[in-house]
Amino acid sequence: MTQPYAPGAHMRAEIFEQPEALARLLERASAVLSPVARAARNCAFAVLAARGSSDNASIYGKYLLEGQARIPTALAAPSLFTLYDTPPRLAGALVVGVSQSGAAADVIAVLEAGQRQGALTLAITNTPGSPITAAAEHVLLLDVGPERALAATKTVTAQCAAYAGLVAAMQDNAALKQHLHHLPHYVRNALSREPLLTAWVPSLFKEKRLAVIGRGYAYGAAHEIALKLKETCFISAHAYSAADFLHGPLALIEPGYPVIILLNHDETQATTIQVIARILERGGRIFCLATSPAAAALPAHPRLNALVVDAPSSLLSPIAFIAVGQLLALNLSLQLGHNPDQSRGVSKVTVTK
Amino acid sequence: MTQPYAPGAHMRAEIFEQPEALARLLERASAVLSPVARAARNCAFAVLAARGSSDNASIYGKYLLEGQARIPTALAAPSLFTLYDTPPRLAGALVVGVSQSGAAADVIAVLEAGQRQGALTLAITNTPGSPITAAAEHVLLLDVGPERALAATKTVTAQCAAYAGLVAAMQDNAALKQHLHHLPHYVRNALSREPLLTAWVPSLFKEKRLAVIGRGYAYGAAHEIALKLKETCFISAHAYSAADFLHGPLALIEPGYPVIILLNHDETQATTIQVIARILERGGRIFCLATSPAAAALPAHPRLNALVVDAPSSLLSPIAFIAVGQLLALNLSLQLGHNPDQSRGVSKVTVTK
Repeated sequence: MTQPYAPGAHMRAEIFEQPEALARLLERASAVLSPVARAARNCAFAVLAARGSSDNASIYGKYLLEGQARIPTALAAPSLFTLYDTPPRLAGALVVGVSQSGAAADVIAVLEAGQRQGALTLAITNTPGSPITAAAEHVLLLDVGPERALAATKTVTAQCAAYAGLVAAMQDNAALKQHLHHLPHYVRNALSREPLLTAWVPSLFKEKRLAVIGRGYAYGAAHEIALKLKETCFISAHAYSAADFLHGPLALIEPGYPVIILLNHDETQATTIQVIARILERGGRIFCLATSPAAAALPAHPRLNALVVDAPSSLLSPIAFIAVGQLLALNLSLQLGHNPDQSRGVSKVTVTK
Repeated sequence: MTQPYAPGAHMRAEIFEQPEALARLLERASAVLSPVARAARNCAFAVLAARGSSDNASIYGKYLLEGQARIPTALAAPSLFTLYDTPPRLAGALVVGVSQSGAAADVIAVLEAGQRQGALTLAITNTPGSPITAAAEHVLLLDVGPERALAATKTVTAQCAAYAGLVAAMQDNAALKQHLHHLPHYVRNALSREPLLTAWVPSLFKEKRLAVIGRGYAYGAAHEIALKLKETCFISAHAYSAADFLHGPLALIEPGYPVIILLNHDETQATTIQVIARILERGGRIFCLATSPAAAALPAHPRLNALVVDAPSSLLSPIAFIAVGQLLALNLSLQLGHNPDQSRGVSKVTVTK
């Protein structure tokens, strides 16, 4: 029997489909990604083109490509390809375009410029036969099923996993491949912590603004969680790197100011804990998603709430953080009386030039 | 006779020093920038490292380098150079590090990695003898005099002008060089419009959040104006490209929501005017800084306030927009009873790793 539709039902279903969707993708992706990875090893630099959530996945991709594959990676400035029609030189580059719908005209324009200039091109999309599939030499179909909620969820974690798979193939990194194989299991575990997460909702209810802080590999996840909160809860949620936050934005923190912090057990752990201390000193309230080893290093403080979110390795933690952030946005949105499947004023497929 | 100190006196003085400071810089800069420009023409890509306001100037630099000199340009992810110690390959790159104080450890680390790997390196700083001057082959001293206010002003417009000077030299672009020569005069004119700008202050008084929208060459200026408002007024001001704004953040706009928009008379003009229309439809209030030709295309609307800010060319408009945005932040901060020279919780020299 089909259940009657309840607000947020699509977003909820799609969030919980992620473990399965990731497992299916990871099984199929290497056939597409292996030849791209072989050719990409010879690229001098990479350019990633995307908008919205796909752009946040691409921030994660930039850190992986630069920090693991050691390829300098720029996020494309699409207007230079479309409106201005003065694209940079792309010969010798790996050009990746990411679009859930496959209809993003500006992302397609970057791939087309790459093709014209002889770059190695890869399109990542969830939509077979969409225009982007004709704009690149290589096409990775995410194939995670239709996304009916307005806010992108399963396509974003799939895009992140695709970047990780690409980099694992470029490096022939057996550990990362193995960790990716275990990722769906960890994401399922992370999502099972929903009851602990919903305990945060009353404390965040009616907040008009909020900061989300991540650093290093978790920086893109901070952007994505902030975007989910904006789209579904209409909160002015904004992402910062833990380092940039100390250059000015720290001044925003006044007593009670809510800050979501992503704490990963890698080289960013110590400095991120310092930022937590600075925010607590100024009276801010912290909502921390932390991996187990990092959570153990957190101080006890009445204004510090922590939820353990684990992943197979610190490189993949951001994907689990994103999934949990989606679940927080969903619950907060429903509590606020919104329907996160629909949002207001925003259409699912945004074609900008 | 020395005047007694009044709150904001340093920031005000430094804002109004900009025409002189720019003129002095532009006279001296080409001796340093010409040899860098000659060598940079052979670089396959560029990497720009900076934090805070200098990072916003570098967003402007990225658009100039990509759109004019056609060199693909990445903003550095400093943690990969410092905390993780896994920098990307930089051989064949132009690496630019920008730091007002010259003490930014992470920016210095990027330049040092560039030097080790044989990249062409350029440091841009306001502080002679600072550590950054030892970390690059070429050093451009802004020499705009000490910056005593907490919020960076004259150093930011000088950094932007330095990027424009570099690109003009790389292209041997006589028009851009000529326009740069006229820039100080236009900035002086823009600052003389302060009385019109202060008329906006009562309408923005007590706003807790605000969006700043710019696109293309004006995108970095949107980031810089948002940062000034955060640092001096403690407003959650956030920057968006006009295109990204339609991918989600538009949902934030509810009746009365204030949006500062930068409108330039270039290829972004038409789409930016469309975004203005969407925001007005949703009940938002627009505060538009527009160049004369672009202002003529604005619709009349009771919730649309426009101030004309001219520059010698659309490529240089962002520098004039930044100067006027500083002046708005100063006046709003004073009206709110803050002292923008000091801010709270933030130190002038921020050393992050």
